[in-house]
Amino acid sequence: MPDTLRRLSPAGIRDVTIEGGFWGPRLALNRTATLPHIERQLERVGTLDAWRLKGRPRPNEHVPQFRDSDVAKWFEAAAYSLMTHPDPALERRLDSLVNLLARAQWEDGYLNTYYTLVEPRNRWTNLRDMHELYCAGHLIEAAVAYHAATGNTRFLEIMCRCADHIAATFGPGRNQKRGYPGHEEIELALVKLYRATGERRYLRLAEFFINERGRRPHYFEQEAKARGETRPPWAGLDYFQAHLPVREQQTAEGHAVRAMYLFSALVDVAVETGDQTLLAASRRLWSNVTGRRMYLTGGVGSSRHGERFTFDYDLPNDSAYAETCAAIGLVLWSHRMLQVEDDGEYADVMERALYNGVLSGVSADGVGFSYANPLAVHPRPGGDHPTGFAPERQEWFVCPCCPPNLARLLASLGQYAYSTGPRQASVHLYLQSAADLEVAGQRVALTQRTDYPWQERVRISVEPERPAAWTLALRMPGWCAEPRVAVNSEPLDLRGVVRKGYARLRRRWSPGDRVEVTLPMKVVRVEAHPRVWMNAGRVALQRGPLVYCLEQADNGPQLDDVALLADRPLRAAYDRELLGGAVVITGRGRRRDAGRWGEALYRPGPTRRAASRVRAIPYALWGNRGVGEMLVWVQEG
Amino acid sequence: MPDTLRRLSPAGIRDVTIEGGFWGPRLALNRTATLPHIERQLERVGTLDAWRLKGRPRPNEHVPQFRDSDVAKWFEAAAYSLMTHPDPALERRLDSLVNLLARAQWEDGYLNTYYTLVEPRNRWTNLRDMHELYCAGHLIEAAVAYHAATGNTRFLEIMCRCADHIAATFGPGRNQKRGYPGHEEIELALVKLYRATGERRYLRLAEFFINERGRRPHYFEQEAKARGETRPPWAGLDYFQAHLPVREQQTAEGHAVRAMYLFSALVDVAVETGDQTLLAASRRLWSNVTGRRMYLTGGVGSSRHGERFTFDYDLPNDSAYAETCAAIGLVLWSHRMLQVEDDGEYADVMERALYNGVLSGVSADGVGFSYANPLAVHPRPGGDHPTGFAPERQEWFVCPCCPPNLARLLASLGQYAYSTGPRQASVHLYLQSAADLEVAGQRVALTQRTDYPWQERVRISVEPERPAAWTLALRMPGWCAEPRVAVNSEPLDLRGVVRKGYARLRRRWSPGDRVEVTLPMKVVRVEAHPRVWMNAGRVALQRGPLVYCLEQADNGPQLDDVALLADRPLRAAYDRELLGGAVVITGRGRRRDAGRWGEALYRPGPTRRAASRVRAIPYALWGNRGVGEMLVWVQEG
Repeated sequence: MPDTLRRLSPAGIRDVTIEGGFWGPRLALNRTATLPHIERQLERVGTLDAWRLKGRPRPNEHVPQFRDSDVAKWFEAAAYSLMTHPDPALERRLDSLVNLLARAQWEDGYLNTYYTLVEPRNRWTNLRDMHELYCAGHLIEAAVAYHAATGNTRFLEIMCRCADHIAATFGPGRNQKRGYPGHEEIELALVKLYRATGERRYLRLAEFFINERGRRPHYFEQEAKARGETRPPWAGLDYFQAHLPVREQQTAEGHAVRAMYLFSALVDVAVETGDQTLLAASRRLWSNVTGRRMYLTGGVGSSRHGERFTFDYDLPNDSAYAETCAAIGLVLWSHRMLQVEDDGEYADVMERALYNGVLSGVSADGVGFSYANPLAVHPRPGGDHPTGFAPERQEWFVCPCCPPNLARLLASLGQYAYSTGPRQASVHLYLQSAADLEVAGQRVALTQRTDYPWQERVRISVEPERPAAWTLALRMPGWCAEPRVAVNSEPLDLRGVVRKGYARLRRRWSPGDRVEVTLPMKVVRVEAHPRVWMNAGRVALQRGPLVYCLEQADNGPQLDDVALLADRPLRAAYDRELLGGAVVITGRGRRRDAGRWGEALYRPGPTRRAASRVRAIPYALWGNRGVGEMLVWVQEG
Repeated sequence: MPDTLRRLSPAGIRDVTIEGGFWGPRLALNRTATLPHIERQLERVGTLDAWRLKGRPRPNEHVPQFRDSDVAKWFEAAAYSLMTHPDPALERRLDSLVNLLARAQWEDGYLNTYYTLVEPRNRWTNLRDMHELYCAGHLIEAAVAYHAATGNTRFLEIMCRCADHIAATFGPGRNQKRGYPGHEEIELALVKLYRATGERRYLRLAEFFINERGRRPHYFEQEAKARGETRPPWAGLDYFQAHLPVREQQTAEGHAVRAMYLFSALVDVAVETGDQTLLAASRRLWSNVTGRRMYLTGGVGSSRHGERFTFDYDLPNDSAYAETCAAIGLVLWSHRMLQVEDDGEYADVMERALYNGVLSGVSADGVGFSYANPLAVHPRPGGDHPTGFAPERQEWFVCPCCPPNLARLLASLGQYAYSTGPRQASVHLYLQSAADLEVAGQRVALTQRTDYPWQERVRISVEPERPAAWTLALRMPGWCAEPRVAVNSEPLDLRGVVRKGYARLRRRWSPGDRVEVTLPMKVVRVEAHPRVWMNAGRVALQRGPLVYCLEQADNGPQLDDVALLADRPLRAAYDRELLGGAVVITGRGRRRDAGRWGEALYRPGPTRRAASRVRAIPYALWGNRGVGEMLVWVQEG
């Protein structure tokens, strides 16, 4: 494969074992609670029945056009799970689903249960709204994962036939449609299919979709006209990232999940084709997103209206949409850019999203989910919640895109932790794990022992087959002011060794070498850019990669009235009682006594603020102790 | 009239002359700019043509069902204007409008141009939505005003016929409808009609409407069923204050303007019938509104969605709807309660709304209007404004209820300033004016010379026809900690004299008596109740009755980042250059330098805050110097 632009390749999922530490129990929960829960929900709401071509809908019954993707993402997660934790019963259930799929596929390769069941004559007539290509993309990703997990080629063959049908339908030819998906996803899936099969036509199709997007005349407009639509479209072209050719897009616009998948695909295609212009667009859009449109939690897409990006520095807290899927998409994009650039800036964002805006998407028991991830909650009487979602995790959603997306990310977490490059092994994420990597022509076993992010020490054992010179690149997180590294108990002078966010230890590594990374985790009071007016006068607490929040369960109500004392220390301590154990931050604040305030709505100040204790917990753990207020950005003064 | 419950009666509009000072030029502008502007707009958009029964709408053309009221309110304002400033040309135009009305009236007394022109067969079939009774109410108010202004009985006769038709249509009788208006207004208008004519049936009809409201079975539901509506109603009964009988309502719910008009009518009917239960409801609802649901500006109805009350302490600033009409309604209600209770608490709220959330409804040139009155503005790219309205005054609205409502309030301002009661004259509002009142059986001329609210001194000359003992009640505003009063240069000891918010000077008043009231106007930093989470850590500046705000024009952008220094003084000074002259507040603050912050979206604090000058202007004057940020609640620290 002409991998011209990519400096690094992710570790194989099955080559990384994650047990113990922070993530071990969480991944076990994902495998043993979340995945079966999702399977039950898919059965309960009839999504699996669709693959059985059962339940032909009644007239006027609403059938979600995207439900094939819900199954596909769960399937993909299950396949990843098989890679690290074989489960013959699960594998048999996946096999039988593949059988259903085979039967549901049309003679010409077409595969989509919505159109098959509801309006078979209208396939490929509404790319803008109907998610056909999106669903196909998720099925392709599932097929590639299943093939990699089991070696069974059946699902991959089905999806190759489907992709071939799509490639015949769409393209620049006279009898082809010059369309592209309303919801991006298939582009990155086609690159995966190309990598799995070596068939370059899939890469070309991905390229075609990316290059057509935003071209004039606009396909979605022509298509709407052809359908006889007379009303103006329900969303502008920017909602679909189709307002401009992608190479001309300066800012991240529209539906955030779509944008993340598109931007991920830009990197994938650039890497495989050597197209620097796509990479330049990705870098530019990256700067816009992470520099002006990203919550501290790694959440993106601030508005519930259109689940979308709005404008620079518009990051309201209690109406923060910050869809779990969008934070996941930011992980996917960041991870891809990281392989290309080998720059810790991308790993920092990947880690930020993972530990905060992604992990907040699932409850401590693994069977409750957040769709929106606000940074402040003020429970309201009645149902008019600022994000559109009740401020507590739900077991399922009308649009259940997030739960299986989260499950597949967690089930494949190992690949995000390590990479290899020419004579290089990189550690991006610190987590208790064992990785078996190919470095400089031999297998190297890297083992991390750590309680990160609760603790700041990471012990890495390096076990190559034989001594050899190569570079071990250890991420020095952007949040850490004074990292320390010792090799075989010898402290290193990191000056000159740290470049682009990694301590790059080039040396002759021998069996038995031991590295110790220490990442002092001071509690940091983060400020937001002055243009983020919502956070003016407020700070957020961060320790290591974790963003913290105040909850009513610990601090009582009226959290906005709490002011942290600027000159008093904040203390971090492990609380083994809190939701399986977590480091909590405690400190001193001041607040008014609402009980003593009296009846007046307004009165002349100043009102005495009494000393109070403040206790903050990791944002990812919020909402596991009943409904109540929650606040990330806290007054200081 | 059995005026059993009311302690005071408002001064007659024509008995109060307001010239010079704060209000003189503003009322002149209302008369010479606003009223002609509204008349032109009513002509431009065809609202006046409807009275000519012209412009029968095309099929599917949307005709606002409430447009008779737009004309009526303007007509009422014009009639008030005639009382103090005769204008034969204007009076002739009003006369000819009355002619049109006479022609538009049906044989049976019915009068509504929407139904006449659009769906004549459907009259009285949709009280919930169609504003028939609301429009009739405003026409009645206009007729009463016109009669009082001109002595001409024609319009009054028309509206008596209309009211008689309504009284025949609605009532407890077998062939009558037990309905009541979806938008309250006619209740208070019918009491005015009763007072103008002495016909008790109009009072009884008002009472009927109030008593029926909220009764089971719900009229709006029965009516919808009778219309064959199958879809659920677009709003709950609480939107119309029809969820419960009014005597059982504990909190102010639903559409704020409707609520204000209903609550005003409760007082009117209570006063005329002696019904203490209505007064108790009014008091209870008053406490809820002013104690938990009112902006510092006197704005009420915090949500654009339904233009309505939401829940206790829900007072967001940048999405504050706080419709101008609702603040006007709060003035109307407060004024009524003030007459009953003779308690400065009501005058305080009346003044708060008048000087802030009402006056902000019109631009400095008198021809631009605010519908929503937010307490913070952060201009956004694109059109998605938090209130639904662009953050600048408009010359007209699709629903133009506010401009003529404002015009009629200002044109009748004199009646809000003074009252008389048994052997008592009350001064509620301090403004440069001359009032001719009947007190203790003789005429008393009260003259105020003052630049209030710019200056704290008010000189009142008392000129009775002959010496007599009676009480001059001078309002001691709630915002003023240490008021002073001198009579004939003799300072009074106010202890024992001030009761229920008034210095009650009972003495033998003689021609030539001079009273001087001094109301020290310190700049006050107001705090909001801790449960108003939006304002935690923030203060609002108030001086006298005026709430202040920061504008970008004076302070640059990122106003939320400005923190007033708690320990530094704030200075008030008159700036004759500012919009015709106004007292501005200046002081010291601290803020971050956005220019030096750099590119980072987040970074560890603390960031140095540099000293900065802060300049605040009266809230009522915001938005007259271009579009920019505006902020009432400012950080302190």
